[in-house]
This record gives sequence, structure tokens and C-alpha cells, in this order.
Amino acid sequence: MTNVHKSRISVDIYGQQYIIMGTESPNHIRLVASLVNDKMREIHSKNPNLDVNKLAVLTAVNAVNEYLKMKDELEQLKLEQQKEKDY
Amino acid sequence: MTNVHKSRISVDIYGQQYIIMGTESPNHIRLVASLVNDKMREIHSKNPNLDVNKLAVLTAVNAVNEYLKMKDELEQLKLEQQKEKDY
Repeated sequence: MTNVHKSRISVDIYGQQYIIMGTESPNHIRLVASLVNDKMREIHSKNPNLDVNKLAVLTAVNAVNEYLKMKDELEQLKLEQQKEKDY
Repeated sequence: MTNVHKSRISVDIYGQQYIIMGTESPNHIRLVASLVNDKMREIHSKNPNLDVNKLAVLTAVNAVNEYLKMKDELEQLKLEQQKEKDY
């Protein structure tokens, strides 16, 4: 049986408390929460009429977009590395 | 003056319509929206009592977490590449 230690951290995001569970360190979980919080406040400041629900969805859209761009960059870098090894 | 073409795409995420604007291609924007939609449905199936607002925030938390992990991997790979060049 594996015994992976799970963190259980309470964080505040946009004025709401969330219990986040994960195998990541408490510091990592707090960093993620604070980035989401910052991004929600940034999107709110540009679109003050958005309700919290749409704000959160657009924050998720933003994060997934950044994730995909980084994934492309990572794959490109891996390809380059492979090419160099092949020569 | 730069003339960057901005897409303006209407997408459906978790039963709500969103207008997403960006310099990315319409297909990329639709892919991002469908990933957010899928992730929201996945988190909902595991936590059916969560309201939509919390569901969207947790989806954003999830995406930012994946983003940070990939960023670490990318930085590690760049470091390795740099080391190889230095030898």
C-alpha cells in the first residue's frame, strides 16, 4: 500500500474559504490559491460588472490558456533536445 | 501601430455563454473552453454538492496547479539544455 501524505489546507480565494487537498506541499497549495485570487481580482478590475461565477470561469479559461501555451513551449523544447541528441 | 487580429468567439462553458476575445485562433479558444467545461464537469461529478461558483474557482485552482508544475518542468529542461551547451 502506498502511503502518500496528503496536505489539507484551508485557503481564502476572493473572500471565500476553500479546503484544498493534495499531495503538494502546503506552501505550493497556498501559492496556487494566491495566484487564482490575484487573477480573479485582476479580471474583476477590468470587468467590474462580471458576477463572481463568470469571473471564476474566466479565471479558469485564462489559466488553461496559459497552461496550453506552456505545454506547446515544453513540447517544442523537448523536440529540439531530441534533434540535438540525434545528430 | 500594430494591427494584431483579435478573435471574438462565443463559447458555451457549463451551460453559460461567454464571449472570449484574444489573439489566439478561434480553434485554440474553443479548445480552451472545452477543457474548462470538461474539468468543471469532472469536479462536479466528484463533488455534486458544490455550487457553480466554487466549482469554477476549484477549476481555476486545478489549472493554475497544472500550469505551475509544467513551468517547473520547463525550467528544469531549460537548465539541462544550458548545462549541455556549457560543456
